[in-house]
Amino acid sequence: MVRDLRICCVGDSFVAGVGDTRCLGWVGRLGVSAHAAGYAPTLYNLGVRGQTSTDIQIRWLGECERRLPAGSDARVVLSFGVNDTSWDGGGPRVDPEVSQEALTRMLAHAADRDWRVLMVAPPPVDDVAHNERTADLDERFAEICARAAVPYVRVHRALRESALWMREVAEGDGAHPGARGYDLLAELIAPHWREWLSAE
Amino acid sequence: MVRDLRICCVGDSFVAGVGDTRCLGWVGRLGVSAHAAGYAPTLYNLGVRGQTSTDIQIRWLGECERRLPAGSDARVVLSFGVNDTSWDGGGPRVDPEVSQEALTRMLAHAADRDWRVLMVAPPPVDDVAHNERTADLDERFAEICARAAVPYVRVHRALRESALWMREVAEGDGAHPGARGYDLLAELIAPHWREWLSAE
Repeated sequence: MVRDLRICCVGDSFVAGVGDTRCLGWVGRLGVSAHAAGYAPTLYNLGVRGQTSTDIQIRWLGECERRLPAGSDARVVLSFGVNDTSWDGGGPRVDPEVSQEALTRMLAHAADRDWRVLMVAPPPVDDVAHNERTADLDERFAEICARAAVPYVRVHRALRESALWMREVAEGDGAHPGARGYDLLAELIAPHWREWLSAE
Repeated sequence: MVRDLRICCVGDSFVAGVGDTRCLGWVGRLGVSAHAAGYAPTLYNLGVRGQTSTDIQIRWLGECERRLPAGSDARVVLSFGVNDTSWDGGGPRVDPEVSQEALTRMLAHAADRDWRVLMVAPPPVDDVAHNERTADLDERFAEICARAAVPYVRVHRALRESALWMREVAEGDGAHPGARGYDLLAELIAPHWREWLSAE
């Protein structure tokens, strides 16, 4: 009997796959690989453009609860932070301590519900100072996930060092890559995704 | 300047693309065709397995409002009904009059918000009696959409007459097709989708 695997992917525009002409994003690419590996996942993409950790914190629980019924193998993938660290006049849109608090609370709510979580780091954009702030948040998120025993996929640095990613972002809207960038991001996540999927 | 086109696709498991090993569903396939036609849509898939019109009515407005900001070309695609007409002991899960009321109210709420709507009919499954009930609901939905001047894409009969669709559904879980079935459904919707996208 096939497991009733249901996965909500929660986050921002990178989760939604904005800019991907193939309309899969990294979420869809990982879904395809899960099917190929013999899983039959029901995948829900709950990425929303422009949202920060605090925006996501408001909506994610309701949206996930109605998609993850009791009795299913209920899972959540989280990825956000780039909008938290974007500059808004005198400072980042969300203070790093507030972002940390949001993530900490989300992980606690997920644990309460027995939802197994995987977290993916916020990727870099075409703005050096913005990326510095995101790299700092990346460290903070990694620590929080380590304490919660949640796997955290550290893609931020690898993407900054990728000529392909940085070029597609620059040639796009300055934030989002195209189809090849999403290929690359999905490849970076894939080994962690496979291990996470196989955990019972 | 490219239009900021944002489209929420709201409905059930067929909207979510359950069973599609390519993880696109008909929604993703139409998104790819929109990109190919020069649009840059932000596409949100808000299909949820097992949901009836009344389940959807409870959640859709909140989920769409936070994805369709003021100033965007905000649109909604609706498709549901198969779960309404599934048999639940002594009758269908949702009485046809209640389904009609739900759709009528959703179209009124969308009109209030200036969201342009496209509706796609509920497809057939591997159960003749169930399909008869869905075909009746299809007629009712078509009338409601005609009165509201909302385009309604009548795929139900064409899919029942499609050996490919009916075979994939039977070989699958009895309700959902595979990748080729979703290809076919997307092809049936495509001309209506293109016309709807081009409307200003």
